[in-house]
Amino acid sequence: MSFFSFELDPALAADPVFDLHKRGKMEISSTVPLASRDDLSMAYTPGVARVCEAIADDPSLYFDYTWTGNTVAVITDGSAVLGLGNIGPKAAMPVMEGKAVLFKQFGGVDAVPICLDTQDVEGIIAVVKALAPSFGGINLEDISAPRCFEIERRLDAELDIPVFHDDQHGTAVVVLAALRNAVALLGRRFNDLRVVISGAGAAGVAIAEMLMAAGIQGANVIICDSQGIIHASRPGLSETKAALAGVTNFSGRSGGIQEALIGADVLIGVSGGTIGESALAGMAADGIIFALANPTPEVAPAIASKYAAIVATGRSDFPNQINNVLAFPGIFRGALAARATTITQRMKVAAADAIAEVVADDLRAEAIVPSALDPRVAPAVAAAVVRAAERDGVAGFISDSAAADVAPVPA
Amino acid sequence: MSFFSFELDPALAADPVFDLHKRGKMEISSTVPLASRDDLSMAYTPGVARVCEAIADDPSLYFDYTWTGNTVAVITDGSAVLGLGNIGPKAAMPVMEGKAVLFKQFGGVDAVPICLDTQDVEGIIAVVKALAPSFGGINLEDISAPRCFEIERRLDAELDIPVFHDDQHGTAVVVLAALRNAVALLGRRFNDLRVVISGAGAAGVAIAEMLMAAGIQGANVIICDSQGIIHASRPGLSETKAALAGVTNFSGRSGGIQEALIGADVLIGVSGGTIGESALAGMAADGIIFALANPTPEVAPAIASKYAAIVATGRSDFPNQINNVLAFPGIFRGALAARATTITQRMKVAAADAIAEVVADDLRAEAIVPSALDPRVAPAVAAAVVRAAERDGVAGFISDSAAADVAPVPA
Repeated sequence: MSFFSFELDPALAADPVFDLHKRGKMEISSTVPLASRDDLSMAYTPGVARVCEAIADDPSLYFDYTWTGNTVAVITDGSAVLGLGNIGPKAAMPVMEGKAVLFKQFGGVDAVPICLDTQDVEGIIAVVKALAPSFGGINLEDISAPRCFEIERRLDAELDIPVFHDDQHGTAVVVLAALRNAVALLGRRFNDLRVVISGAGAAGVAIAEMLMAAGIQGANVIICDSQGIIHASRPGLSETKAALAGVTNFSGRSGGIQEALIGADVLIGVSGGTIGESALAGMAADGIIFALANPTPEVAPAIASKYAAIVATGRSDFPNQINNVLAFPGIFRGALAARATTITQRMKVAAADAIAEVVADDLRAEAIVPSALDPRVAPAVAAAVVRAAERDGVAGFISDSAAADVAPVPA
Repeated sequence: MSFFSFELDPALAADPVFDLHKRGKMEISSTVPLASRDDLSMAYTPGVARVCEAIADDPSLYFDYTWTGNTVAVITDGSAVLGLGNIGPKAAMPVMEGKAVLFKQFGGVDAVPICLDTQDVEGIIAVVKALAPSFGGINLEDISAPRCFEIERRLDAELDIPVFHDDQHGTAVVVLAALRNAVALLGRRFNDLRVVISGAGAAGVAIAEMLMAAGIQGANVIICDSQGIIHASRPGLSETKAALAGVTNFSGRSGGIQEALIGADVLIGVSGGTIGESALAGMAADGIIFALANPTPEVAPAIASKYAAIVATGRSDFPNQINNVLAFPGIFRGALAARATTITQRMKVAAADAIAEVVADDLRAEAIVPSALDPRVAPAVAAAVVRAAERDGVAGFISDSAAADVAPVPA
């Protein structure tokens, strides 16, 4: 029996990744019996009508008596997929499916991949708002900057379920976790770090905001984009970058990455570009380099190690992989369990601290973050997120049962 | 451990349907291994990027290398849910989940329930068009007439995947199947039947169109709505009803259901109302009554049997249940296997004939359609739909492999 309609190029057919992806990576199954006439009359008509009527009478029953209380939509417009760029909705689907199965594997969350046939900001907002009753949360994915900022901000404000752009905040959460542990290992004061972020896209902006929310002084943060250092008097800054310029780089340093790195303690690369060795030479002693571009880090780990005490990348084949899978499954697991109406900055910082704590007793320069496969991570993150949601008053759930609910994450 | 945030009314808590529906009726799971670092690098980054690039280069690979080739979105706006009416998107979700799990159970199709927060025709069309790349087909569900006609017509014309409003066509397909067998059992000529349809909503309109497509003469079809018989000179007809008046009831009969039924061979009730016994007395001998309103048939089966030789209802606790589950899983299974770009009237008629044939060798007045649980139905329907799609030139797939693919329906 042959299912496949089109012949695959022999070079691709030899690649086991294509064999793995045949027919996709996920399926839906029933959690209720459907074998008898009685089963059907319970799960479908006429029995189901009684559940519909109860929800119509009391909408607070919705999350408890449908699957939505455990679901997230993973939504993209295909405009900024991995390092591949704007490849459109269909070519983005394998990534969204991958994300969806990771949600289930690590967070026990049922995630539905949605690839939209529009890249218009207002169009995307309208579609996601219309979809919102079908899900317990919205994970935005691989939507290009600066469109992603507006889309997330508007949806978060207008919907009463959590909205989270993982390329921004998932990355920022894991960076913060890694930085917390790197600083602990080096015996330095977190709040005094001088940080250079290379890249002002979705991840770079979110990292800057999160590090400042966690205590690093904006005065000591310098952000570079493809034009060099972002500073308040640079002409032609976008709205997002102008806002960043107002709260960072108080000395108004200008120039390129070479100038930015003079005296820096921390370099975080989220640019997709490369950074020359000569620029690294200007960093302070006992530094930290996170070169997160994939598949090619901005600085090769062997080079980075010459100029920094701790090095991390985005790759699984080097130590210290900064992998979003440490964050998003537990964050949504916690947000759903708490019935959170939003995901606050404090919930994200709590998630980062929880990730860091998992390996706090066993810190090494080559293990500042847990393995992506560590089953302790998502339950710890979820529990921290529930507590932070309650502290911030955004939980729609009573404390004891929510806390109990996050314990048995099926990871 | 308690998951549930809200106390259920004790009367509802005693109903086992609510226990069954706790946390919903479905889940998502991975079909690929995710246990090791290598697994992750195949299913997610960096390996997945190669599949994305291949699809970007050759979009014909999309359905083969993602889950979309086997998926259907079950989409409602909550405007006409079961017999409950306009209860909105959230209260509609238990029905959509039920539909989704039936799709998998009987057709092996992965179905995603989507409840939209808009009841605007243009809004629904825009949202579904934006969602379309995420799915292999669209099953519209419980959208009120006449809005459902425009929504389906526009989406079918504008999308290159099958669009099917089950309340219209699923019902019509099973009615046609039942009528074929009833006629065979009674030894009558199908094309000569005089048919009265009580109800001119989604199902009534689709049944009229399908019966005429299958050979019944429009001259001999009479349709009644809440105002009585639809005829060409009745003032104030909607666009849909005016079109029907033009191709049915050639004698221009007027009046109510009593007048309509004089001399009728077949009564099909899809109104939700009731039909008095006195009206039935006017029917011709050896008649057929399908009283499909749920949960209360337009005519109680015991009464109907006094005036007709064969009786069917929509209920599972009487003989001859006209249940859409006989149609939609196999129709979409076949349409997806054929990569059909639409579902033609001939594909629907072929589906009906396939349903009828399953019990053709064992016809009894109490068994004119197969049981909803009969595992032979969906594969037979799927195979017939594939062949009809090829005959109609709407299949995007080569014949042999599509035909082979429908054989092992995991029902």
